[in-house]
Amino acid sequence: MTGLRLAVTMGDPAGIGPEIIAKACARLRPRLESGALSLLIVGSAAAMRGVEAISGPIPEEGAAGAGSCHPPVAILEAGPEREPIVTGVISAEGGRLAYLAVEKAVALAQAGDVAGIVTAPLNKEALNLAGYAYAGHTEMLADLTGARDSVMMLAHGDFRVSHVSTHVALAKVPSRLTEPRLRRVIELTVEALRRLGIARPRLGIAALNPHAGEGGIFGREDIDVTAPVVASYGSADFDVFGPVPGDTVFVKLRARQYDAVVAMYHDQGHVPVKLLGFNVDPATGEWKALSGVNVTLGLPIIRTSVDHGTAFDIAGKGIANEDSLIEAIDFALQLAATRTR
Amino acid sequence: MTGLRLAVTMGDPAGIGPEIIAKACARLRPRLESGALSLLIVGSAAAMRGVEAISGPIPEEGAAGAGSCHPPVAILEAGPEREPIVTGVISAEGGRLAYLAVEKAVALAQAGDVAGIVTAPLNKEALNLAGYAYAGHTEMLADLTGARDSVMMLAHGDFRVSHVSTHVALAKVPSRLTEPRLRRVIELTVEALRRLGIARPRLGIAALNPHAGEGGIFGREDIDVTAPVVASYGSADFDVFGPVPGDTVFVKLRARQYDAVVAMYHDQGHVPVKLLGFNVDPATGEWKALSGVNVTLGLPIIRTSVDHGTAFDIAGKGIANEDSLIEAIDFALQLAATRTR
Repeated sequence: MTGLRLAVTMGDPAGIGPEIIAKACARLRPRLESGALSLLIVGSAAAMRGVEAISGPIPEEGAAGAGSCHPPVAILEAGPEREPIVTGVISAEGGRLAYLAVEKAVALAQAGDVAGIVTAPLNKEALNLAGYAYAGHTEMLADLTGARDSVMMLAHGDFRVSHVSTHVALAKVPSRLTEPRLRRVIELTVEALRRLGIARPRLGIAALNPHAGEGGIFGREDIDVTAPVVASYGSADFDVFGPVPGDTVFVKLRARQYDAVVAMYHDQGHVPVKLLGFNVDPATGEWKALSGVNVTLGLPIIRTSVDHGTAFDIAGKGIANEDSLIEAIDFALQLAATRTR
Repeated sequence: MTGLRLAVTMGDPAGIGPEIIAKACARLRPRLESGALSLLIVGSAAAMRGVEAISGPIPEEGAAGAGSCHPPVAILEAGPEREPIVTGVISAEGGRLAYLAVEKAVALAQAGDVAGIVTAPLNKEALNLAGYAYAGHTEMLADLTGARDSVMMLAHGDFRVSHVSTHVALAKVPSRLTEPRLRRVIELTVEALRRLGIARPRLGIAALNPHAGEGGIFGREDIDVTAPVVASYGSADFDVFGPVPGDTVFVKLRARQYDAVVAMYHDQGHVPVKLLGFNVDPATGEWKALSGVNVTLGLPIIRTSVDHGTAFDIAGKGIANEDSLIEAIDFALQLAATRTR
């Protein structure tokens, strides 16, 4: 097969983005050189030069040309750098370059020049300093692609969780659980699982309220919204279970009773995924392992991301972990391979 | 030292209570016979007879007498049995006996006849059928002891989580986070940690909103309520950190950066504890390990509990797991030993 090409956006060049990209390139080198995969890094070329000792030399992308023969790895400047970037320091320039990288990568994906985009972390404060008032990647991507109702899925191996709501105050969470939204999340999740090769996906739907509301004593949303939606899929070609109380649904997911869980809100889904995928070294207090992938479903393009932040505190120290980025690249490849079949 | 005596309530006699109590007695036999500990099982004597093959014979308690010499294990009838109990079947009689067992055990603890009580699971539906309209043990214990504001702590080894709110609809959770309630939860948690021998407890306070509200964009409770309370403990003889986003605070707890986390609501705290303590067998779909302890802080008596349910589906099959009950007994002993010092 001809290898797929992915865009990898650098995120904030002052964070750990350049370092984890360089480390991922080094680890993926055999696959890159075999032609199974090529990567177009979109961001600050100067920042990549700073980590070339890790990655080896990476050429700058020439004139973009679909169908032409791409080098295994290349850098595409997100935009002219107006000011030097200082590693570990939040700046408007870092936010501006992070935005421009995503904008360029989205355009390349929409034009079919790359099969999908994989994003390294950006910093919201820097983004806002640069005048881009987004809560994060997800909102920016929805805007850039015109998508109305995307869905965040976090995945750590087979442990996959999509979310009905994410970046919203807890007080507003119950009102986000509506029949159309829940159906959209279920159907996009089923579609993604099919692309991962699961013929008959099994979904567990987490309850909004503790004990699924205990028969209505602790809230009626699980009875009034979730249960009828679940029942309506009785004859579908996938299986939906729920509402399952939040404190057992993830134990069952880990035991592979489901292929994914639909969580109702940010922390309900993020707490278990990060507990399984993240590790802090008890001796030093430093983050050790950061594995897991953030996938945006419902966009017209394929997009995956690391599921950690810019980690300004460890940027430039050489200790950032590239596991999550490699998982995100592999996840995008899986989605892209089945989409183009 | 003279051994401490604990009351163990059977919970619903139709559930797995009798079986896990019998298994715990068998495993604790050496400590029981050494005099380090004695147990008074409060519940259905007939149900204990049904599992005597596991536990060995257990005598019925004679006239209760403080200071008298107790056998290592004894049974105290919760009340006269009006109807036979059928294992695995919800009934008003099961609920009634579960209630009476707790009522008797609380009276014994208040009289000083036992050092604390450890409760096996009851079934809320059975309880309600019997005319006791409680959401669960916690509410019942508050009523029986006149406690106004108890706190639920779940513990799995060193992984300890107390809760600002528990059995309440998610929509009502934000209003439960008040300054007095948060202070009460922090202070009761610190007191419990001290009793466990931790001289200078360290507490992580979970944020209510995702990303701790992202500077107020996703809710202000973390800024308006939690941050000032945390700041007010600056010169205390314990350390309080937060608000820490929910999706990282439990990773840090597992890495022992804190001795306990204060969670804002049921699922935020229950999801990580149960993910660490519970296991489902992927082959059979059956619950395998159920470890973890539920501790009620703020009562005038010591009370710990298993942190799983009645498991009517596996009751009587001989496959119930006693780990959580043994942990609950040990936790009660630790709290009781320091309280009586």
